[in-house]
Amino acid sequence: MAHVLLINGANLNLLGTREPAVYGSVTLADIERTLGEQATRLGLGFTAFQSNAEAALVEQVQQAAGRSDFIILNPGAFTHTSVALRDALLAVDIPFIEVHISNVYAREEFRHHSYFSDIAVGTIVGLGPQGYELAMTAAHHYLHDGTTPA
Amino acid sequence: MAHVLLINGANLNLLGTREPAVYGSVTLADIERTLGEQATRLGLGFTAFQSNAEAALVEQVQQAAGRSDFIILNPGAFTHTSVALRDALLAVDIPFIEVHISNVYAREEFRHHSYFSDIAVGTIVGLGPQGYELAMTAAHHYLHDGTTPA
Amino acid sequence: MAHVLLINGANLNLLGTREPAVYGSVTLADIERTLGEQATRLGLGFTAFQSNAEAALVEQVQQAAGRSDFIILNPGAFTHTSVALRDALLAVDIPFIEVHISNVYAREEFRHHSYFSDIAVGTIVGLGPQGYELAMTAAHHYLHDGTTPA
Amino acid sequence: MAHVLLINGANLNLLGTREPAVYGSVTLADIERTLGEQATRLGLGFTAFQSNAEAALVEQVQQAAGRSDFIILNPGAFTHTSVALRDALLAVDIPFIEVHISNVYAREEFRHHSYFSDIAVGTIVGLGPQGYELAMTAAHHYLHDGTTPA
Amino acid sequence: MAHVLLINGANLNLLGTREPAVYGSVTLADIERTLGEQATRLGLGFTAFQSNAEAALVEQVQQAAGRSDFIILNPGAFTHTSVALRDALLAVDIPFIEVHISNVYAREEFRHHSYFSDIAVGTIVGLGPQGYELAMTAAHHYLHDGTTPA
Amino acid sequence: MAHVLLINGANLNLLGTREPAVYGSVTLADIERTLGEQATRLGLGFTAFQSNAEAALVEQVQQAAGRSDFIILNPGAFTHTSVALRDALLAVDIPFIEVHISNVYAREEFRHHSYFSDIAVGTIVGLGPQGYELAMTAAHHYLHDGTTPA
Amino acid sequence: MAHVLLINGANLNLLGTREPAVYGSVTLADIERTLGEQATRLGLGFTAFQSNAEAALVEQVQQAAGRSDFIILNPGAFTHTSVALRDALLAVDIPFIEVHISNVYAREEFRHHSYFSDIAVGTIVGLGPQGYELAMTAAHHYLHDGTTPA
Amino acid sequence: MAHVLLINGANLNLLGTREPAVYGSVTLADIERTLGEQATRLGLGFTAFQSNAEAALVEQVQQAAGRSDFIILNPGAFTHTSVALRDALLAVDIPFIEVHISNVYAREEFRHHSYFSDIAVGTIVGLGPQGYELAMTAAHHYLHDGTTPA
Amino acid sequence: MAHVLLINGANLNLLGTREPAVYGSVTLADIERTLGEQATRLGLGFTAFQSNAEAALVEQVQQAAGRSDFIILNPGAFTHTSVALRDALLAVDIPFIEVHISNVYAREEFRHHSYFSDIAVGTIVGLGPQGYELAMTAAHHYLHDGTTPA
Amino acid sequence: MAHVLLINGANLNLLGTREPAVYGSVTLADIERTLGEQATRLGLGFTAFQSNAEAALVEQVQQAAGRSDFIILNPGAFTHTSVALRDALLAVDIPFIEVHISNVYAREEFRHHSYFSDIAVGTIVGLGPQGYELAMTAAHHYLHDGTTPA
Amino acid sequence: MAHVLLINGANLNLLGTREPAVYGSVTLADIERTLGEQATRLGLGFTAFQSNAEAALVEQVQQAAGRSDFIILNPGAFTHTSVALRDALLAVDIPFIEVHISNVYAREEFRHHSYFSDIAVGTIVGLGPQGYELAMTAAHHYLHDGTTPA
Amino acid sequence: MAHVLLINGANLNLLGTREPAVYGSVTLADIERTLGEQATRLGLGFTAFQSNAEAALVEQVQQAAGRSDFIILNPGAFTHTSVALRDALLAVDIPFIEVHISNVYAREEFRHHSYFSDIAVGTIVGLGPQGYELAMTAAHHYLHDGTTPA
Repeated sequence: MAHVLLINGANLNLLGTREPAVYGSVTLADIERTLGEQATRLGLGFTAFQSNAEAALVEQVQQAAGRSDFIILNPGAFTHTSVALRDALLAVDIPFIEVHISNVYAREEFRHHSYFSDIAVGTIVGLGPQGYELAMTAAHHYLHDGTTPA
Repeated sequence: MAHVLLINGANLNLLGTREPAVYGSVTLADIERTLGEQATRLGLGFTAFQSNAEAALVEQVQQAAGRSDFIILNPGAFTHTSVALRDALLAVDIPFIEVHISNVYAREEFRHHSYFSDIAVGTIVGLGPQGYELAMTAAHHYLHDGTTPA
Repeated sequence: MAHVLLINGANLNLLGTREPAVYGSVTLADIERTLGEQATRLGLGFTAFQSNAEAALVEQVQQAAGRSDFIILNPGAFTHTSVALRDALLAVDIPFIEVHISNVYAREEFRHHSYFSDIAVGTIVGLGPQGYELAMTAAHHYLHDGTTPA
Repeated sequence: MAHVLLINGANLNLLGTREPAVYGSVTLADIERTLGEQATRLGLGFTAFQSNAEAALVEQVQQAAGRSDFIILNPGAFTHTSVALRDALLAVDIPFIEVHISNVYAREEFRHHSYFSDIAVGTIVGLGPQGYELAMTAAHHYLHDGTTPA
Repeated sequence: MAHVLLINGANLNLLGTREPAVYGSVTLADIERTLGEQATRLGLGFTAFQSNAEAALVEQVQQAAGRSDFIILNPGAFTHTSVALRDALLAVDIPFIEVHISNVYAREEFRHHSYFSDIAVGTIVGLGPQGYELAMTAAHHYLHDGTTPA
Repeated sequence: MAHVLLINGANLNLLGTREPAVYGSVTLADIERTLGEQATRLGLGFTAFQSNAEAALVEQVQQAAGRSDFIILNPGAFTHTSVALRDALLAVDIPFIEVHISNVYAREEFRHHSYFSDIAVGTIVGLGPQGYELAMTAAHHYLHDGTTPA
Repeated sequence: MAHVLLINGANLNLLGTREPAVYGSVTLADIERTLGEQATRLGLGFTAFQSNAEAALVEQVQQAAGRSDFIILNPGAFTHTSVALRDALLAVDIPFIEVHISNVYAREEFRHHSYFSDIAVGTIVGLGPQGYELAMTAAHHYLHDGTTPA
Repeated sequence: MAHVLLINGANLNLLGTREPAVYGSVTLADIERTLGEQATRLGLGFTAFQSNAEAALVEQVQQAAGRSDFIILNPGAFTHTSVALRDALLAVDIPFIEVHISNVYAREEFRHHSYFSDIAVGTIVGLGPQGYELAMTAAHHYLHDGTTPA
Repeated sequence: MAHVLLINGANLNLLGTREPAVYGSVTLADIERTLGEQATRLGLGFTAFQSNAEAALVEQVQQAAGRSDFIILNPGAFTHTSVALRDALLAVDIPFIEVHISNVYAREEFRHHSYFSDIAVGTIVGLGPQGYELAMTAAHHYLHDGTTPA
Repeated sequence: MAHVLLINGANLNLLGTREPAVYGSVTLADIERTLGEQATRLGLGFTAFQSNAEAALVEQVQQAAGRSDFIILNPGAFTHTSVALRDALLAVDIPFIEVHISNVYAREEFRHHSYFSDIAVGTIVGLGPQGYELAMTAAHHYLHDGTTPA
Repeated sequence: MAHVLLINGANLNLLGTREPAVYGSVTLADIERTLGEQATRLGLGFTAFQSNAEAALVEQVQQAAGRSDFIILNPGAFTHTSVALRDALLAVDIPFIEVHISNVYAREEFRHHSYFSDIAVGTIVGLGPQGYELAMTAAHHYLHDGTTPA
Repeated sequence: MAHVLLINGANLNLLGTREPAVYGSVTLADIERTLGEQATRLGLGFTAFQSNAEAALVEQVQQAAGRSDFIILNPGAFTHTSVALRDALLAVDIPFIEVHISNVYAREEFRHHSYFSDIAVGTIVGLGPQGYELAMTAAHHYLHDGTTPA
């Protein structure tokens, strides 16, 4: 059974409790539960992880080697700053989709650059918590086909 | 019944016939049929349009005012060059999702800038033809909630 | 009798019907009628043309050679993107004034550059539909003097 | 009776006496007299001011608060350098039109940026001394409507 | 018999009639006739096409797939703006030479960048109408060798 | 009898012996012999020169004053670095065509800028050794017409 | 009783022990004690926190929600690199003053940009350890007035 | 008795009368009186000066040599434009603190650069009129210690 | 008798009294006396002017029209900021040499750009007060030859 | 006995297990053992440290003060992002050599900038695990000479 | 027996005689003798070459084809300017290590870019004359392994 | 007796024979003779050198160590490209003045940057051949005073 790892980065533990105008009212626990149920329906294993520490995310990715077949990744603020997390993903070579809840292109200019988009399978931006569900659907499709989802 | 308009821009009529390594083997007709069926299942009206002419796209968007409730838009090459199409979307003020089949962030640098992302609800990039289906799912969610899909 | 050609570019057919906060409630038909009457009062011939298609604008300019003595031009979005329209104006060498209804300098940064301003007689920006009337007044002055309106 | 203030900046006292190829042969006195007559015809009060000193222009703008309803401003060289004059205009919050006699976009690149255009009602560039008259016409229109002249 | 397609873009229909100081007095009809005769002498099929519309050029290139073996392309103003035409050429993967009649490097800076040069076999710039003939000679050489003309 | 000077710069002595994937297998001696024969057929005098030393190229150009009527120049690496060679060409004011064997626009970004293109009659890029022959044809045309080859 | 949180970032634990020429000889413990006494005199609650770990700072800010009314923040090196800490401050929406002990504008250019200044109430730079005391004075003023300290 | 000079630049005479949302309602006279009283309490001499003229500020700084021991400087708009004032401060070599009432980092980008910050002892930004009082406190500390206030 | 005008800008009244390490110990009065004597020896009329006010410099240049035949100009800090002074020089069209006492190229980067060098006859930089004398020698040569001193 | 500290940053724990095409098959344990033996041979004390956490590296450097005489540092991804680690090295002022296993100049452009190279004794790049041994040799030389190894 | 070629570029003949603070007191002859002895110990052939002439360096590299197996290269000033030398190295395709005696990253910004680093096996910077010896050690390792020294 | 060395770079051997509109009609021999006579009058030794070869200039500078006390340098085109010549001047540490005959600031933008100005005593630009004489006068002054000519 293929396994999908959901990784959320800095400040995503606050989801649903802060800045609802930007990020909505759904909590991270809601998202993780919803995605777990979706994974079960799709016949996929599932683990969720969140940390505000770059090193913890790096090590989670390192440990995913040989365990997970796909990563759904919302690096949060690390999107724009973490070469270390990029390098971990390059090292383990696990396909991943980058998700952002809010539309980063409508915010500060420094949020327009990602250290992950060019090495991701794809990106889903601005579609709220549903973006994670769409990514899980795409992950299932990717794992089912055994090819890039072109 | 809410109505969704699918607009594809320059060269997307070639989908499935050219550069399969980049764009896959699914044709535009396949995509339009699949999305039509998906729309029906979701209780949504649906029209599909493709043109290689910027003006035709601009006018299609203009005419969508009062007819369509959501646009799924893959501007193709116009993503990086068409202020006219951006202006048409600003004028009609219909919410839309921007879709790209290939991962534009892994290609030439001029493909990293979009004239649409900052005014879109969101973007789906690099997930192949499935990206359109995910966009339709998100459109349905958006129209059902009556709010941004945060 | 000298002849003035009014050319409006992409999305200006929507004038008065969309984004009134930015562009006001006067329609393009209103403007064209007003300018026609003004031309008559000034003893000038007058033709108005609008298109959302860059090629149609290019060809209108090409055909103005030998027919029109002055052009009042609002390229709309093509202001920022059309080298082809610039080249047509360079080719026919008809003096023209560039008009923008809204204040482009108070909008997105990409609207601050024009492919036309450096080869125009002058520009009128941000004065609403009245900008066209001021341009007609200036055109009359220019044609009467037979020199640049310094 | 609404009052219009005409302000000309550095070196515009030389108008008509120097560089006629660029600026024409009309003197500043001619322009001020013409605009005064035009204001009278339009039922507007009018004062004209010129200085080569940035501080004098700043203070003229400061003193216009509560006295003038509209400013026609040709900052001359200060267009490209004076944040102080910009700040004075922001402080008094009097609507103004920016006028340039020559086509600044056809001259040195540093003349393409203005510290005023984005906070002006609009700009008139390259139409010679007549540009002031067109600005007065627009000012009258603006004051008559009580709204931005969209 | 190998077939060569000559494509000319925006405003090249004016050749020989406008701006002779820049573009010379040879007309497009002259060029097309000369190249047709040259093609016949070289045992090559030949078709010529010109349009001011980007979409028409895109579609001409799309339809060349399976019909033409080489393209001689002068995109005119689209050289600097058309990602859509670039994408059409990438899609059909027909070798082509980019030709410019005038020396674009001696003109405005925005003419120094081409969306085509990096994917062309080569470029010929500034040699006037003869540049097309040189391109036909090179096309013949290319098609005869069956390799890049190194 | 008009005289054409062929100048090749740094590392072009290696032609045909190194990096055949980029530069092909034709040697510089082959090219010089071929161009000499072509010049004879066209009734032109011909001299060929190659050096890896910038100063030798500069002095060759200086000495061409009053001796040569046209230069075919492939500066090699000096294309991107030699203001001295540019200055020599400006000083002697002999018309020249710039030739590059490989497509410099498909290589490193620093190869996209030339210190020669804006002062050349024209450029021929990426057409292999044949590019020199096309340049000789154009030189003959230029010298025959006594004008720029527009 | 309003509560003020003092947060110091990377390497500020070394204060007073390293690089006295840049940072002086006062230790962090001295500063924290001094500010605690000052807070008491002003009738304010006070907590001090220092960490070299970005994640610890992020979490300290997250936990300040509902507990602290004002933050005095010297992010140290994170000033120039931490979007995560910026996001935490945006999320909890607690007013804060940014303090730097040394004059960052007189040091390396990368120290001239801060990810915090634009969202801070204000900044105090280059005034040594006393800068913290001035920030505490300003915090008291801010909390007393219930408005921005304009 | 050490002497402190307070210098305010362009438009700061308007303080408290214009743009209260940005600058508050305290007048410059209020600030000068408050600082004078604070100086007296601290045993410092005090003079206040304001001008909208760059030259007057330059000369005030020149004349401060040998008279004042510290300058509290809010250059207003000259912050971003006056090399002359910077040079005067370099010449007299009197330590100074730069004060801005509003948060310049939250305003237009051209306000993010100062010609003074790198040569100041330090800067206080965004803390309203109180910023001047904090600067006086720091000046007293600086003059008391006879060293930089590290 | 030809007349030479010496103009010194902001802070040059401090020469010889401040920053001797950068500017030396010669006073402005010394320089003006030395140049006056040199002018007399060369049979030239001479006037010297210094001001810290940009407007005074502008007006001095304006008034030089018809009175002075050559200007020796050290704009001081206005070198880098004054378009108004540049415009005055363009207007009166009097040839001038730009002098800087210190080597501006060895100082802050903003001192490397001058608004005057491209319209000056020439520049003399870094040679101390003697630079003025060399400029006077060159002015004499220029006026004697009646041509540019090539 | 002088002491050398070896510090490896993010993802270097994966050495020899991931991306062998880029980083080779030698493990970090191999490197640490090899360097330990080399240190013993050279009569140097030795400690090795690796962490994926920026803060752990910062603190390791802080604690090296007074204990280690030289640092061999491969910051991994932190090379391009960590001002905090740079500041720690500036604070403890221990000489160090920067080592990179792969050739960072042949990889993504963001890897071409290092926050460490300008404050290091020197750098060794692209020479694989041997680079560490060369650094140890250089460290020994540096410590033996008591000067920079010029 | 494998052969190593040591090439030193412009001004390295001055080593040990000029700027000892930057480059040390070891002469080039010392270095060449030391490396020759080291090569002998390692069983490697060795030749040393120095020139101030770019062309001589280019030709030395050209002639190394088929003779040398590895190059140790310190291009001196040509590091930052010579595309010709880069092209020679690309042509002969001999592996090389780039050495700089001083730390170029701590000097002028134009010294931070090298035309060689991205095509070198690796670089050794700032370690003084010893850098050459380390490069010889690495060359031996490279030649012994027959692979890149990862 | 102090000795002055005059060095002229690429293409300056053409002086007086080419491009008289830019460089005048005085030959290099004229200049060298004039300066030799001037040196004799001033009691200075004098040698003149010109080369089109960068290496020859580098070596001339190297050999000037211990022989010449001052250099008058017109690097010609090498002004903008030669780090090698800059390094030679840094190495020998002989004071020099940079001379340009034409006004480089009124020519192509790449001529606005010099690799020499920041390390020169000063520069003289645009004053024609007389510029060399002024430089000799300044050299004499410099050598007489034994200090920088401030």
